Amino acid sequence: MITLAVDAMGGDVGLDVTAPAAAAFLNRQPDVRLLMVGHQEQVQAALASAGAPLDRIEIVHATEVVAMDEAPQHALKNKKDSSMRIAIEQVKGGKAQAAVSAGNTGALMATARFVLKTLPHIERPAIAKFLPAQGGHLTLMLDLGANVDCSAEQLWQFAVLGSELFNALHSQKQPARVGLLNIGSEDIKGTEVVKQAFGLLKSSSLNFIGNVESNEIFSGGVDVVVADGFVGNIALKTMEGTVKFIGGAIKEELNRNWLTKLGALGALPALGGFKKRLDPRRFNGAIFLGLRGVVIKSHGGTDAVGFAYALDEAYHEAQSNSLERIAAGVAQRFATAEASDGQPQ
Amino acid sequence: MITLAVDAMGGDVGLDVTAPAAAAFLNRQPDVRLLMVGHQEQVQAALASAGAPLDRIEIVHATEVVAMDEAPQHALKNKKDSSMRIAIEQVKGGKAQAAVSAGNTGALMATARFVLKTLPHIERPAIAKFLPAQGGHLTLMLDLGANVDCSAEQLWQFAVLGSELFNALHSQKQPARVGLLNIGSEDIKGTEVVKQAFGLLKSSSLNFIGNVESNEIFSGGVDVVVADGFVGNIALKTMEGTVKFIGGAIKEELNRNWLTKLGALGALPALGGFKKRLDPRRFNGAIFLGLRGVVIKSHGGTDAVGFAYALDEAYHEAQSNSLERIAAGVAQRFATAEASDGQPQ
Repeated sequence: MITLAVDAMGGDVGLDVTAPAAAAFLNRQPDVRLLMVGHQEQVQAALASAGAPLDRIEIVHATEVVAMDEAPQHALKNKKDSSMRIAIEQVKGGKAQAAVSAGNTGALMATARFVLKTLPHIERPAIAKFLPAQGGHLTLMLDLGANVDCSAEQLWQFAVLGSELFNALHSQKQPARVGLLNIGSEDIKGTEVVKQAFGLLKSSSLNFIGNVESNEIFSGGVDVVVADGFVGNIALKTMEGTVKFIGGAIKEELNRNWLTKLGALGALPALGGFKKRLDPRRFNGAIFLGLRGVVIKSHGGTDAVGFAYALDEAYHEAQSNSLERIAAGVAQRFATAEASDGQPQ
Repeated sequence: MITLAVDAMGGDVGLDVTAPAAAAFLNRQPDVRLLMVGHQEQVQAALASAGAPLDRIEIVHATEVVAMDEAPQHALKNKKDSSMRIAIEQVKGGKAQAAVSAGNTGALMATARFVLKTLPHIERPAIAKFLPAQGGHLTLMLDLGANVDCSAEQLWQFAVLGSELFNALHSQKQPARVGLLNIGSEDIKGTEVVKQAFGLLKSSSLNFIGNVESNEIFSGGVDVVVADGFVGNIALKTMEGTVKFIGGAIKEELNRNWLTKLGALGALPALGGFKKRLDPRRFNGAIFLGLRGVVIKSHGGTDAVGFAYALDEAYHEAQSNSLERIAAGVAQRFATAEASDGQPQ
């Protein structure tokens, strides 16, 4: 039986999202239980009103809540009894296999690093996310914003982490195809750091396919796309902005006159299918990678449907033992490195 | 009468694109003439077969062509009689107000820098492009790939160049709203270089509106978005990739079954309007900014419709005297800087 710890109070909305999401998630996953962390009475009331299966839920009391705009260091120092921190501590103490929170990203990352620590050899954790690509493929991209100024060695560490996670979650014949996000396919392209990272990746034992440009993220031809947190975040938010802009443009065109409005009625099934396929809620759930525990960050503004998808992500990771596989993979690659020339393999 | 110099041989296709584009462009713009640079007989034949108005065309003979995959330094050293270089030399010699080429980007930039030189105070030229935004707004973004490792001062120079170009092309009351591409709106966000650039921009006389995230490029709330060439190129190609991916997903949904196929027929007018609105050919024509001359880079793989839009871009710049206004604006801001504390204003 898998147990997940949920920061029941986190996010823009809190319990009105997390409680119904917990109910929906438990109803579709029979072999899992939840530790709902938050104010005992409030959580109890919200779960009852959401009709959640209480036999598979335990409420863990926490008196404080980290605010969405609270400075990470402030939360770390002053909110030791927050629902966010207690949820992470369930993972640390072995009572849960993963923690999920829709709270303040900076505070969640700072708390997760402080409580769980990074894996041996890993300097800093990264934020990773599966993104939809052609042919139903899912591409893992990292880092999405945790680390703005990265060294080539850190980019290499992200590549190892991403590769091991992808391999843990997918049972394909070949190891994950790793690409370095760059502005051209040639070896000589990119910033100095990116060029150095190219060298490290090329001489590593990863299945490195070379530089990928940002229009190839969706091609299905790459499994793991590595970038520093600044560039990764820019790419992610450009996607979000483009999708929103295009959605607006389609809507405007469909509403332009009576002819297009009439036509829109006929196209509703297809447009509905399209909307469902790219529904951002389905891709909710960013993964904090490189920690000694699984932590999933839900979008702060998502609804119950979206939060339940973040719970799914945590469940899949726990079920696939991704953390153990990542830790073993990282240790092995660094052991090989130390036995040879000291360079990561 | 405005005169534009055209690299008639450049691009993936060459004359079969540039000659019909020249014909279409001249037919819709009466007060302009073209210097078509390339192999005399081949250009003549292509123009005749495209039915171009020959009374407003002069052919300038060039014996060589820069290959699309040629190393920029090789082209610079060995192709002194290329159509690309001779076209740029028409601008240098005052025979044309702007040059347009669909050739090799690296070679075009290297040749333009070598022949025209940068404006006083400008260390390196940038590549800029107008992108579609909400409400029909056009947002100028730079740098799109000419400079991968930038200093804060260079980002400030790009902001000045972009701002002056926007002001020259648009007669609005307020000066261009300049935003710094970043991963959050707070002052403290971003890489070290970006944080330094934020300080320079904040204390400058530009209409600096602060950091903008990449999903705000399309909001219409910013006129000029400044980034280093690595980040700008990643954002641009992410947009292109997302548009293509979404277009493919819509097509798949419309073709899913007989119901959606039937519905698609009704939605054709709206989808056609949508496709036309975001047609990348309409946004063809990247601007090389910071040189002592106007150079427009057309996409290498565009067709005659797209190449004619790049000619339009060159025409608008020449007509608005953008170069003189940019040069004057740059000189004035640096004079103010030198008279005070030496920091750019």
